[in-house]
Amino acid sequence: MNNQHHRITTLVDGVFAIVMTLLVFDFKIPHLSEAKVDTLITAKLWLLWPRFISYVLSCVVLGIFWIYHHNQFRFIVKVDRNLLWINILFIIAVAFVPFSAALIGEYASHKAAIVVYGINLIAIGQVLYLHWRYATGQYRLVRKELSEEIIKNVNNRIMGANIFYGVAVVVSFFAPAISLLIYILVPLYHVRPTKYKHLAGEEKNG
Amino acid sequence: MNNQHHRITTLVDGVFAIVMTLLVFDFKIPHLSEAKVDTLITAKLWLLWPRFISYVLSCVVLGIFWIYHHNQFRFIVKVDRNLLWINILFIIAVAFVPFSAALIGEYASHKAAIVVYGINLIAIGQVLYLHWRYATGQYRLVRKELSEEIIKNVNNRIMGANIFYGVAVVVSFFAPAISLLIYILVPLYHVRPTKYKHLAGEEKNG
Amino acid sequence: MNNQHHRITTLVDGVFAIVMTLLVFDFKIPHLSEAKVDTLITAKLWLLWPRFISYVLSCVVLGIFWIYHHNQFRFIVKVDRNLLWINILFIIAVAFVPFSAALIGEYASHKAAIVVYGINLIAIGQVLYLHWRYATGQYRLVRKELSEEIIKNVNNRIMGANIFYGVAVVVSFFAPAISLLIYILVPLYHVRPTKYKHLAGEEKNG
Amino acid sequence: MNNQHHRITTLVDGVFAIVMTLLVFDFKIPHLSEAKVDTLITAKLWLLWPRFISYVLSCVVLGIFWIYHHNQFRFIVKVDRNLLWINILFIIAVAFVPFSAALIGEYASHKAAIVVYGINLIAIGQVLYLHWRYATGQYRLVRKELSEEIIKNVNNRIMGANIFYGVAVVVSFFAPAISLLIYILVPLYHVRPTKYKHLAGEEKNG
Repeated sequence: MNNQHHRITTLVDGVFAIVMTLLVFDFKIPHLSEAKVDTLITAKLWLLWPRFISYVLSCVVLGIFWIYHHNQFRFIVKVDRNLLWINILFIIAVAFVPFSAALIGEYASHKAAIVVYGINLIAIGQVLYLHWRYATGQYRLVRKELSEEIIKNVNNRIMGANIFYGVAVVVSFFAPAISLLIYILVPLYHVRPTKYKHLAGEEKNG
Repeated sequence: MNNQHHRITTLVDGVFAIVMTLLVFDFKIPHLSEAKVDTLITAKLWLLWPRFISYVLSCVVLGIFWIYHHNQFRFIVKVDRNLLWINILFIIAVAFVPFSAALIGEYASHKAAIVVYGINLIAIGQVLYLHWRYATGQYRLVRKELSEEIIKNVNNRIMGANIFYGVAVVVSFFAPAISLLIYILVPLYHVRPTKYKHLAGEEKNG
Repeated sequence: MNNQHHRITTLVDGVFAIVMTLLVFDFKIPHLSEAKVDTLITAKLWLLWPRFISYVLSCVVLGIFWIYHHNQFRFIVKVDRNLLWINILFIIAVAFVPFSAALIGEYASHKAAIVVYGINLIAIGQVLYLHWRYATGQYRLVRKELSEEIIKNVNNRIMGANIFYGVAVVVSFFAPAISLLIYILVPLYHVRPTKYKHLAGEEKNG
Repeated sequence: MNNQHHRITTLVDGVFAIVMTLLVFDFKIPHLSEAKVDTLITAKLWLLWPRFISYVLSCVVLGIFWIYHHNQFRFIVKVDRNLLWINILFIIAVAFVPFSAALIGEYASHKAAIVVYGINLIAIGQVLYLHWRYATGQYRLVRKELSEEIIKNVNNRIMGANIFYGVAVVVSFFAPAISLLIYILVPLYHVRPTKYKHLAGEEKNG
């Protein structure tokens, strides 16, 4: 692990940590007068269920992107100015999630919220794709041992998810509920096991 | 320390740092008109005592979980995809604390707040337990030298605390004050000295 | 990478990660009554465009400063008390950005906001300049191999940007729109390629 | 640098980064109707001067404590369970600063705010003192080469500052303005040069 490497991942990890932590601030404590607390508090808390789902979903989606970024960096051995900038773009897209997640938390059934959330996730995916394409193109910044099969597999996984998200955005114009379902199902696509040990994140302690 | 290892702990440590820092934002500065400040400010600040206790308590509880995570990672020498996901779950549970702590800060004497806080702590404990069970099962990701006695001891400590928290949740239906007392006492259970030097976190500088 | 080095960059990277993430909280979710959401939400979201530009701009500007700090630290091999303090100053200036960015997000067309934003950016640049001057003066804290040409080039780039920002501040008294344009264009000045490989941030994995 | 070491400092550095960044959120953007912006905005911003001083002061004070913690850890080579807990206490005290700083920002001339701020700073200092006493007592966790003179010097510096803060707290009952002056002057006491190279934070790149 070199210093360059290290600082990029520290910055990116910091952003992920903050975004994941701030998502919970979308839950507002219900404010009730003392007389009504006992009768109303439980009901009020149950009303937060949709936000709870959106909280867990957004954390899981961010977890997926973090793992992708993490895995890509395991193959990246050099860092150049362009890669730094691609990482800044990545941060811009990731740091936008608290807004788009809050929007979908507030207006889950409305097209506009679904479109903004979807475009945000697609943007993150596209930057990750660009990150990988740039690093692996002509083996610019990655280890020579990296097989072309793995390179392609990463590309396909990211683009596959983005196609699903694109469909969700389009579908939201007709049936927002189906878009939400797609958002909930895409993580399962990512979590499914992979036959590539390296992709699966296994590593021995050096 | 390898790179994989390092990024997980950076992400988790970042989440802990943010959650512990944000807990203080539950303290609201009392707003008083200039004329009344001198007579009222001290009294208003004393009214924040329960929140101060809840602040210290939640920081201590998070400190305990952080030390457990920290100690587990001292024995973990490999990281696989499943462990990454268990850590994402851990983050989801830890990042929820600002909400449940704010809830108990606002409604300390109400069952609903005590139940949510307790379930949150139990969830963190269960994920930590799963983390350790997964890593140590068939010595999957840990050093072979690790004695079975230490493995069991960690399991027992975590489950012990969770049983106390479970009791607190049940008791809250009858006597919320006792539940609060249990929440305050459980940390003492964790802080008690252990005979296992390794568990105690001692390590020489390599 | 030594420990001293490491902790300064961890602290600085943490501040950058938080500032970049918090900028998005300047976007307020529009609050609409259920009846009006469908007709108004899209229009309300489009109204956030200026804030979106200010968000991306501030992230990019922070990205530039982060890359400069990052690059400077690649040549710095010793750390002394003064450098620690210069870094504290740097943090004070960087952590101020959420305020000045929010101000320009709210009052983009007003001189006062443009002046505060500009002075904030100039302050960050001046501290970075001081950082580099102090570290490279008599090769105090940097590698001896560092060529004078690179040392000067870094100085010139930072001062060049600061002159542009200074012009923007002055111009805001007559034509605030031109100042905003300068703020948007300065990043292009930084992003332009450099002929110095080292400055460009390339590094082999040791 | 070992792993234990590393995670404590990561957690502590994270807390410092967040606290320093959040202090600026005490600055509220003045909200003005469009018609009045031009005439009032500059005046409104000038009214924020006391908060600006309190922002810079609190950042500098936190910077001092961070440098102390940083310097102590350069001599600490082992970590035990007690040291972990002292660090958790340290975090609890440091993470409280956004509250006490906001209080003094709002009620600078009132005894209660000055007392809370002073007690907060004294608490941080006392934990740092405990940290150093515990680590150096019988050379428990520090390098054997560490001279007793340096050990004592660190103790004296921390206790010296705490005595000043204690005086400020007492004086606030008679003359709050003098207390504020003491808070502003104490950092100069810390920033003064030291004859101990090691304390001054110099270190070669290993």
